Amino acid sequence: MIAEIISVGTELLLGNIVNTNAAFLAEECATLGLTVYHQSVVGDNEARMTEAIETAISRSDILILSGGLGPTQDDITKTVAAKVVGRGMVTDDNVRQHIQGYFDRLHLGMSNQEITENNWRQAQVPEDAIVLHNENGTAPGLILEEDRTCIILLPGPPGELIPLFHEHVFPYLLKKQPERIYSKMVKLCGIGESAAETVIQDLMESQTNPTIAPYAKTGEVHLRITAKVTSKAQAKELMRPVLQELKARFGKQIFTTKESVTLEDSIVALLKKKHLTITTTESCTGGAVASRLINASGVSEVYKEGFVTYSNQAKTKYLNVKKSTLKYGAVSEQTAREMAKGACKATKADLAIATTGIAGPDGGTQEKPVGLVYIACCVKGKVYVEKHNFNGNRSRVREQAVVAALTLLRDCVV
Amino acid sequence: MIAEIISVGTELLLGNIVNTNAAFLAEECATLGLTVYHQSVVGDNEARMTEAIETAISRSDILILSGGLGPTQDDITKTVAAKVVGRGMVTDDNVRQHIQGYFDRLHLGMSNQEITENNWRQAQVPEDAIVLHNENGTAPGLILEEDRTCIILLPGPPGELIPLFHEHVFPYLLKKQPERIYSKMVKLCGIGESAAETVIQDLMESQTNPTIAPYAKTGEVHLRITAKVTSKAQAKELMRPVLQELKARFGKQIFTTKESVTLEDSIVALLKKKHLTITTTESCTGGAVASRLINASGVSEVYKEGFVTYSNQAKTKYLNVKKSTLKYGAVSEQTAREMAKGACKATKADLAIATTGIAGPDGGTQEKPVGLVYIACCVKGKVYVEKHNFNGNRSRVREQAVVAALTLLRDCVV
Repeated sequence: MIAEIISVGTELLLGNIVNTNAAFLAEECATLGLTVYHQSVVGDNEARMTEAIETAISRSDILILSGGLGPTQDDITKTVAAKVVGRGMVTDDNVRQHIQGYFDRLHLGMSNQEITENNWRQAQVPEDAIVLHNENGTAPGLILEEDRTCIILLPGPPGELIPLFHEHVFPYLLKKQPERIYSKMVKLCGIGESAAETVIQDLMESQTNPTIAPYAKTGEVHLRITAKVTSKAQAKELMRPVLQELKARFGKQIFTTKESVTLEDSIVALLKKKHLTITTTESCTGGAVASRLINASGVSEVYKEGFVTYSNQAKTKYLNVKKSTLKYGAVSEQTAREMAKGACKATKADLAIATTGIAGPDGGTQEKPVGLVYIACCVKGKVYVEKHNFNGNRSRVREQAVVAALTLLRDCVV
Repeated sequence: MIAEIISVGTELLLGNIVNTNAAFLAEECATLGLTVYHQSVVGDNEARMTEAIETAISRSDILILSGGLGPTQDDITKTVAAKVVGRGMVTDDNVRQHIQGYFDRLHLGMSNQEITENNWRQAQVPEDAIVLHNENGTAPGLILEEDRTCIILLPGPPGELIPLFHEHVFPYLLKKQPERIYSKMVKLCGIGESAAETVIQDLMESQTNPTIAPYAKTGEVHLRITAKVTSKAQAKELMRPVLQELKARFGKQIFTTKESVTLEDSIVALLKKKHLTITTTESCTGGAVASRLINASGVSEVYKEGFVTYSNQAKTKYLNVKKSTLKYGAVSEQTAREMAKGACKATKADLAIATTGIAGPDGGTQEKPVGLVYIACCVKGKVYVEKHNFNGNRSRVREQAVVAALTLLRDCVV
C-alpha cells in the first residue's frame, strides 16, 4: 500500500521550524511496510490544500495530514479535507466534553485562561469520521475512510502527534496491511555512530531480511532491525540470530532492545534491581542529569535528593570540596572526584554522579577550552573520573555532558 | 516571485533523516522576499521526479532542487532536470579538474580513496548551465535559466548545500528580487495561543503589511511580524506602530522582541540588572528549572546553588519543611511555600523558586490528580504560590511545570 504525507503550516513554508513530523511519520510508515513516494508541505490556504489533497488521493491509498487542526482561524485542514471528500461538519460531544475537562482542570489551578470561543471549533469534526482521543491537547485526531483512500488527520505539535500516532494510528494501519513489518530497536550508548556502523558493516551489507539501519541520537546509537514477515512466529525466528549477533558484538553497550525504554529508564531499572540509591551534584549540567533521571517514572525508590553546585562556595558548602582542591580549578579531575565523593557522604546515597565543565561561550582558555567537562561517579567510596572535550555551542556541550554522565553512571552499575 | 523547494532522496521518504535542508532553503527564501507555497520530497525515480519538476515549473518562478547530484547510479536529479527542459549533457572541464584536485588532496592524507569511474559523472552538466563551484565536495551546484522559470540544483549534504547557497545562490537571487522581507519576533509568556490570538484578532485580520502570525511553544507564544520592504528605513517605519500596539496590548507578557533571546535569557538579564540572586528547589521538575536557567550564559552572577528535593526527608533536611506542614501532603500549597522560603534561608539568595507536583503516571488520586503542580516563588521573604493542573503524560507535565515556574519567577522580578 502507498502512503503519502502532507504537512500543513506556514511556519514550515517560512522555514521557522524543521519538519520533524514528516520524518517521524515516514519512519513509522516504513515500519508498517507502507511505501511512501511523496511528501509535501502546504500552507493554510484552501485552494492549494485542496489541490494537494486531491493529487494525493489520486495516487495514494493512505494520506496522512498533520497540522492545522488547532483553534485559530488559519487552522483549516479538517474543513478542507471534509470538503474534498464531500462531508459536512458535525459537533462531537465527546470532544466538547474533553475540551471542557481540559480547561476545567486548568481552572482548578490559578490560571485565568478562559475557554475562548475559537476553542470550540476543535469539537467540529467531519461527518462519520473516526475520532481519535488526544490526551495531550484539545484537537482530536481524525480518520476519514473513503472507498479507495483513507485520510488521517493529526495535530501538528509533536508532543500530541507522536502519542496519538502510537496509540491509535499505528494499530489502525497495522490491521490494513497484510504483510507485516516487524521491527526491533537495539539501543547503544558509549559508542559513536560511525564506530557502531563499522562494527556491523558486514551485517548491514549482507542482510536483506531483516535489515539493520543505524540512527544517531546525542550520545546514543539506535539500530533498527526490520523484517518483512507473515506471522509473529516467523518474525521471532528471523530476529533471533540477528539479535544474538548484535549482543555478541556490542555486549554491555546495548542498554535496551525495547523501543519505548530510554537510557534513564534502563538506568533506574538497574538501580532498583540492585537496590542502589543515587544522588547528583552538577555544575555545568546544572540539574539536567537529575532531571533526566527523574523522567523515569518510579524513580523515587532510588533518587531522593541532589545538588546544583554552580559556584565554588556551593561545592565546598554541600560537598566539602577543599580549598586546596579547588586550586586545581573548579573544572579539574580533582574537583570532580571530590564532588562525587562529597555528594555520597552528604546524602548517604550508594552512588553519586558529579559534573563540572566549561560549557561556554565564555570561560575557555588555551589549557582548558570550552567543551572540557569532567564527570565523576562515586560507587560506594570508589571514584571513576572521565575527561571529555565536547564540540558545539553551550547547549550542545551541556547535552553531551548529560548523556556522558548517564553513560558513565550506567557503566558503574551494569 | 514564487519559489518552490523539491528535496530528492529515499532517506527522506524513509524518515531516516530529517529534512533540515528544506527548512534552511525556506528560511533563506523568506529572507529574500520569495514566497514559498510548496515544498515536496521525491525519491530517485525518473517518472516521479519528472512529474514533480513539471508541476513546479507550471506554478513557480524559481525551483530549488536539492540532493541526487552525487556520483552513484541513483543520483539522477541533473539528468532528469535537463531532460524536462530539453537540454543535453556536456562535460565541464573545470569540474573535472576540481574533482581531480579534490582526490589528490585526499590522497595526500591517509585515505586510500581511488577516483572511481562514477565520480567523473559529476563533471557532466546540462548544456548552458551556470556551474557553481562546490569547495566542500565534488558535485557542483547548477542553475538552468529558462524563459519563465529558473531551476537551481544543489547537492544534498548540508555541509555542501549551505555554503554553496550563501556564496552563489543568495547573491544570484538577490539580483532577481528587489523587494525584501524584514521580520521581528515578539515573544510572550503567561498567555495561551488562543487567548493571545483573541487579543490581536483585529490586527491579524486588518494587517497586510506587516502581517502578524502566532506560533505556540510550550508555555510561550511567539508572534512573528513580517514586512515586505524596499529599504531598512521603510522596515523600521512599518514595524514601529505594530510593535507599539502589541506592547500596549500585551504589556509585561512580552519578554523579548529579539529572535535569539530565550525566556531564561530574559530572566537572567532581569536578575542581573536588578542585582538579585536566585536559587531553586525542585521536586517534580527535578533539576529542570535550574538547568533551563543555567542554559543562559553568564548565569553564574545570579545563580550559585540549588537543590533537587525529591523525597520528603530532603525537603526537611535542606529546607526545614516541617513535619506538620508535610501533613498537608508533599504536593500542597503549604509545602511549596515552605520549600521556597526554606531555600532562600539556606542559600541566602534573594529569590527562590520551588516546585512540587504529581507528574504521573502513578501517584494521582481523585483529590490530587496527575498533573497537579504547586509552584512557589519567595521574593525577599514574601511568597507567591500558584496551583496548576497540567494535562498530558509525565514528560509533558514536567515540561509545562518548568515553563510555569520560569513565568512565575519572571512575574516576581519584572
